[in-house]
Amino acid sequence: MSIRIGILGYGNLGRGVECAVKHNPDMELKAVFTRRAPESVKILTEGAKVYHVDEAVKRKDEIDVLILCGGSATDLPVQTPEYAQYFNVVDSFDTHAKIPEHFAAVDAAAKKGGKVAMISVGWDPGMFSLNRLYANAILPGGKDYTFWGKGVSQGHSDAVRRIAGVVDARQYTIPVEKALEAVRNGENPELSTREKHTREVFVVAEEGADKARIEEEIKTMPNYFDEYDTTVHFISEEEMKKDHAGLPHGGFVIRTGKTGWEDEHSHVIEYSLKLDSNPEFTSSVICAYARAAYRMSKEGQTGCKTVFDVAPAYLSSQTAEELRAHML
Amino acid sequence: MSIRIGILGYGNLGRGVECAVKHNPDMELKAVFTRRAPESVKILTEGAKVYHVDEAVKRKDEIDVLILCGGSATDLPVQTPEYAQYFNVVDSFDTHAKIPEHFAAVDAAAKKGGKVAMISVGWDPGMFSLNRLYANAILPGGKDYTFWGKGVSQGHSDAVRRIAGVVDARQYTIPVEKALEAVRNGENPELSTREKHTREVFVVAEEGADKARIEEEIKTMPNYFDEYDTTVHFISEEEMKKDHAGLPHGGFVIRTGKTGWEDEHSHVIEYSLKLDSNPEFTSSVICAYARAAYRMSKEGQTGCKTVFDVAPAYLSSQTAEELRAHML
Repeated sequence: MSIRIGILGYGNLGRGVECAVKHNPDMELKAVFTRRAPESVKILTEGAKVYHVDEAVKRKDEIDVLILCGGSATDLPVQTPEYAQYFNVVDSFDTHAKIPEHFAAVDAAAKKGGKVAMISVGWDPGMFSLNRLYANAILPGGKDYTFWGKGVSQGHSDAVRRIAGVVDARQYTIPVEKALEAVRNGENPELSTREKHTREVFVVAEEGADKARIEEEIKTMPNYFDEYDTTVHFISEEEMKKDHAGLPHGGFVIRTGKTGWEDEHSHVIEYSLKLDSNPEFTSSVICAYARAAYRMSKEGQTGCKTVFDVAPAYLSSQTAEELRAHML
Repeated sequence: MSIRIGILGYGNLGRGVECAVKHNPDMELKAVFTRRAPESVKILTEGAKVYHVDEAVKRKDEIDVLILCGGSATDLPVQTPEYAQYFNVVDSFDTHAKIPEHFAAVDAAAKKGGKVAMISVGWDPGMFSLNRLYANAILPGGKDYTFWGKGVSQGHSDAVRRIAGVVDARQYTIPVEKALEAVRNGENPELSTREKHTREVFVVAEEGADKARIEEEIKTMPNYFDEYDTTVHFISEEEMKKDHAGLPHGGFVIRTGKTGWEDEHSHVIEYSLKLDSNPEFTSSVICAYARAAYRMSKEGQTGCKTVFDVAPAYLSSQTAEELRAHML
């Protein structure tokens, strides 16, 4: 029997989950729940239904795992504890600083409901976190580096769009190759924010807007740009559509450390991702953890879990015997 | 209280474990068990004892986890099931084809003894296996590539040493850069054995030996060299000692796959290791899994486990709360 998946929220991430379910033959999309008028939402999967979000709890027995595809700022802090009472859930909550608080709220709800709730699933937090943990456990006393990009930061793109005179914007975060090389060579550099990443912004400006002022506002924007070397390009709407429609991303987690009685040997552990579509890759990770949530729930486990709590075998559609025979 | 570690077998790997224990403040080396005369074995750790292997079972209450540092060919198939009856154990059994058989024997013994036995821990099998599993679960329908090196293959070095006229030999396995690039570019190449790796051999020959004959015997050796492009260098014993004393290794696990409704987006997941010392890195992985074995045993778990069965949080000396706050 397939794992019956529900999607709550049908934006980039929700559509990504729909595509990922299609790639996993042991899963089936049953329903999409939306805050919009259901008849206005067209989905791709034949046989799956679109309901208003108010219908979700009523349909809890039709869904094995509900995937929460809202945003971390305002949606998930409310939705995940709410729905973890009724469903096994997976979310991609990515406000790193608020994870402990989110965990506590979701854990209480999931335990109350007897459900499994996986939070902060994706690639960072998610696969990058896992690689930090594994590498730290193997090389205690080493040094961690995370680089992001080259990829589109939606938060930074949005920040630029809020500047007066900006019609559209796309911001790329780019790791500094020289810094990456120094880390890989085991030089253990101390890197400032500016030395690790540069930012490149493509802007469509309003007709007659003061481009010099826009550029200055971008480059000096606190938190977002002021600590970085930023390049700004003004382009046309057509160029934006043609060259910057995608949401690529990626990055590198590197740990260097020493072994030997007198720390005489150096080691470099590197994990990297090169992604054409950030939301679709995140969705693919989420689907693997939805499988784990389903299985852990079947075993009688309850409560909030993160990627740290999930034995890798739960993620695979193969049996333990198959994994040992072919993948170990 | 520290986790009390025992080491069985004091070769390169046993010494590596001793060094790794030193790097983990929550662990303590209690004893080394050896087949040699104990008084002939000098270890580095103050306060730890050296005993004959026949003493091991008698001292089972002094050891929380016994790390089995023998070889996969003849030692571990006997030792791991034997000692899993009395101790939580970790081994680095690496004969991939015989893992299912080894698992069955060890599982029966560990369950009988009420112990946890971790097998096939290291980097391949081990960290590479984990990365294959994670990447396969995320990108079903993709393609896996594993490259090894640049590094010393002890099996191939030994094979060359058995040729008449060879005093010493060191064999390096080298991934072909062009093949790596094609994989990283998402070209999904079909690669023959010859296209993935080359082999480089450094040989110290006996005075007056027929070097042309030795080179020919190496290059045509079935299974070991005949399917590869191999370069042979004759060097002096001094050069061997000076330039080839280390045991570096490493490699790459890469998976490429597609997402999107019509497979329109490509992704590359890459994990790589660059290791100055193969046995010391393997030992460092083993120590992290010894911590997991200890904790899982404390929880009442029993039986044989592989890296696939261990939730990552068990590997870290940090608490679940600390991990969520700082590493997720």
